Amino acid sequence: MLNLMKSSKIYATIGLMRIGILGGGQLGRMLALAGYPLGFRFLLLDPDAAACGGDVAPLLTADYDDPVALERLASECAVVTYDFENVPAGSAETLARRVAVHPAPAALACAQDRWHEKQLFTKLGIATPDYAPVDSRDDLAAALARIGLPAVLKTRRFGYDGKGQVVLRTTAQIDTEWRRFAGQPLLLEAFVPFDVECSIIAVRDAGGQIATYPLTRNLHRDGILAASLAPYPCGATLYGEAVNWISRLLDYFSYIGVMALELFVAGDRLLANEFAPRVHNSGHWTIDGAATSQFENHLRAIAGLPLGATDCRGAALMLNWIGEMPERDPWLALPGLHWHDYRKTPRPGRKLGHATLIAEDNDALRKNGAELAAQYDPAMLEKLLKN
Amino acid sequence: MLNLMKSSKIYATIGLMRIGILGGGQLGRMLALAGYPLGFRFLLLDPDAAACGGDVAPLLTADYDDPVALERLASECAVVTYDFENVPAGSAETLARRVAVHPAPAALACAQDRWHEKQLFTKLGIATPDYAPVDSRDDLAAALARIGLPAVLKTRRFGYDGKGQVVLRTTAQIDTEWRRFAGQPLLLEAFVPFDVECSIIAVRDAGGQIATYPLTRNLHRDGILAASLAPYPCGATLYGEAVNWISRLLDYFSYIGVMALELFVAGDRLLANEFAPRVHNSGHWTIDGAATSQFENHLRAIAGLPLGATDCRGAALMLNWIGEMPERDPWLALPGLHWHDYRKTPRPGRKLGHATLIAEDNDALRKNGAELAAQYDPAMLEKLLKN
Repeated sequence: MLNLMKSSKIYATIGLMRIGILGGGQLGRMLALAGYPLGFRFLLLDPDAAACGGDVAPLLTADYDDPVALERLASECAVVTYDFENVPAGSAETLARRVAVHPAPAALACAQDRWHEKQLFTKLGIATPDYAPVDSRDDLAAALARIGLPAVLKTRRFGYDGKGQVVLRTTAQIDTEWRRFAGQPLLLEAFVPFDVECSIIAVRDAGGQIATYPLTRNLHRDGILAASLAPYPCGATLYGEAVNWISRLLDYFSYIGVMALELFVAGDRLLANEFAPRVHNSGHWTIDGAATSQFENHLRAIAGLPLGATDCRGAALMLNWIGEMPERDPWLALPGLHWHDYRKTPRPGRKLGHATLIAEDNDALRKNGAELAAQYDPAMLEKLLKN
Repeated sequence: MLNLMKSSKIYATIGLMRIGILGGGQLGRMLALAGYPLGFRFLLLDPDAAACGGDVAPLLTADYDDPVALERLASECAVVTYDFENVPAGSAETLARRVAVHPAPAALACAQDRWHEKQLFTKLGIATPDYAPVDSRDDLAAALARIGLPAVLKTRRFGYDGKGQVVLRTTAQIDTEWRRFAGQPLLLEAFVPFDVECSIIAVRDAGGQIATYPLTRNLHRDGILAASLAPYPCGATLYGEAVNWISRLLDYFSYIGVMALELFVAGDRLLANEFAPRVHNSGHWTIDGAATSQFENHLRAIAGLPLGATDCRGAALMLNWIGEMPERDPWLALPGLHWHDYRKTPRPGRKLGHATLIAEDNDALRKNGAELAAQYDPAMLEKLLKN
């Protein structure tokens, strides 16, 4: 039996561990807030001097590939991670030669290119919408001939929150959109008439143990995540498949940390859309709705600590505050409502905060939140809360 | 119906609220960590430049009565509170002439003098052990003649964690202890052969609404809180009396914020020991074990926001780390274990951190924690976990 009360050099070392984060946005902020109770310190790197993580942790202001800033992260931190998947993969690789970097830079690089990502899905036997790389007008014609309309034309790199993609529905659109997108590597994907969008968050520790959270149902508005419901009652077969798929991805990269896998449910089929090599907006509900949050579990994993339990505390409904923050007080008066203000300057389309409503189950969620939360977007929430 | 999505000047103002805290120890640290998601900023004042709150919030290093420091708190903060009940009441009063100070300085001043505190209990009909003020050897003789042995001789001021008190069991001790304690205002109290020590934490908002947490059972070691169990299954009558008593205290002071009331259970009687005008160690379990923590509810109250729900998430066992931190990893491997490292320099008798184990109920607590937690102090935990 382990002796818990033993003083230990290991503890003294880990206790002083400083964790570097590439990116100082709300994800870095929530990582730091989750990490202080574990005894960690942090150092954030972000090109924006006003990055909201700087409110709660030391912030280096420099470009992600600034050699001096990277040198500071490497020399002052025991491990480096990211809060943003578009940090240059080269920076992660440079750092990885000097200091532990988790998740593996290879996972970051793969997630940055939609074609590589889709090819990996195919290689690992993970179902995904039909796809074809497009580098010329001829490629596009050939891809359309095979995949048909409607289809989604996407940039292979730097897309997020619905940016860098368009749905082609008619042949009349093709030339216009080709002119708009041409000149960068593209991907054409079959359009999936999905019933439900969902995601699974999982964490893998240094020893290869994997823990998964329940499936989360997501709703987007203008391409940006608007609301999440967890657990999404999808049945054991679908959930088992999602766990299986994300486990293959995690094991493939010998991944350490939290990963999110976005999925479509179409009929009784599951299709993978994309993965994010980091903590994810659709897992924010875990702060208030799970025994251990995705943020704490990411830190536990990258610091070599045992993973925490991922059990749910009832049902959770998360609403994103996009563009402007609503008045806080009426929301705080809702029993079981948890508020998260990232303290960012309002800007259209910008994620400024979120709220999570916790209740015993979906029925209680609907009852507790109905009067007030319905004002958020009654039709959307009705859709989310119905099974 | 309130319009939740309305932008509001009120929000803009409160959203920028900076909260001042007299004291930058672990309570200030945990207040700041609870307050960031609500959108607050903080400014701590502590004479110790190494105060652990300084890791997570700006820290002013100065004496509690330093006029320049108090002026900064008054001018930069919208409301000031305390994390330590022995800050000079005069500083709180000085601040209260310039800025909102919660809880009321009168509550702080009362809690700083055990005689005034006991007199208030009597005045409000709150049962408490028999007591008498002692300013001379004659007073002591008269008090002992009335109260009898054993009895507890205490300093009226500046006692905490069992400091500043002695149990008089034999007449032989009396002169020795008198010589040791004489020269400061004292109080003699009847010694209560209690069965159980417990506490109740409650919060009162600016509108007079009161929310209470369930009764917590506490165990002390060398006068310092060692472990807490919540909820303590004490029955509705006892709980009702505890709620009634703390409500009287809160209303008496028109109190705003969190208060803790320490209680003895002797047979079927409840006796009040003392109250603390602040968040309290016996309420640390609420971070992981209640819908809203005592820290968040204190901040909600002093900032004029609605109180959060105080429901329990199952049963909670909190263990204090005193003098040294144990090795963290085996503890983190316990399902439902939450770790809180204050990052303080170890020193005998110093509170360095705590851990909270959450389980469905007491039986599950005993089962999940038995193997490892028993090493903490098997006899003590056995006592705590038995009903």
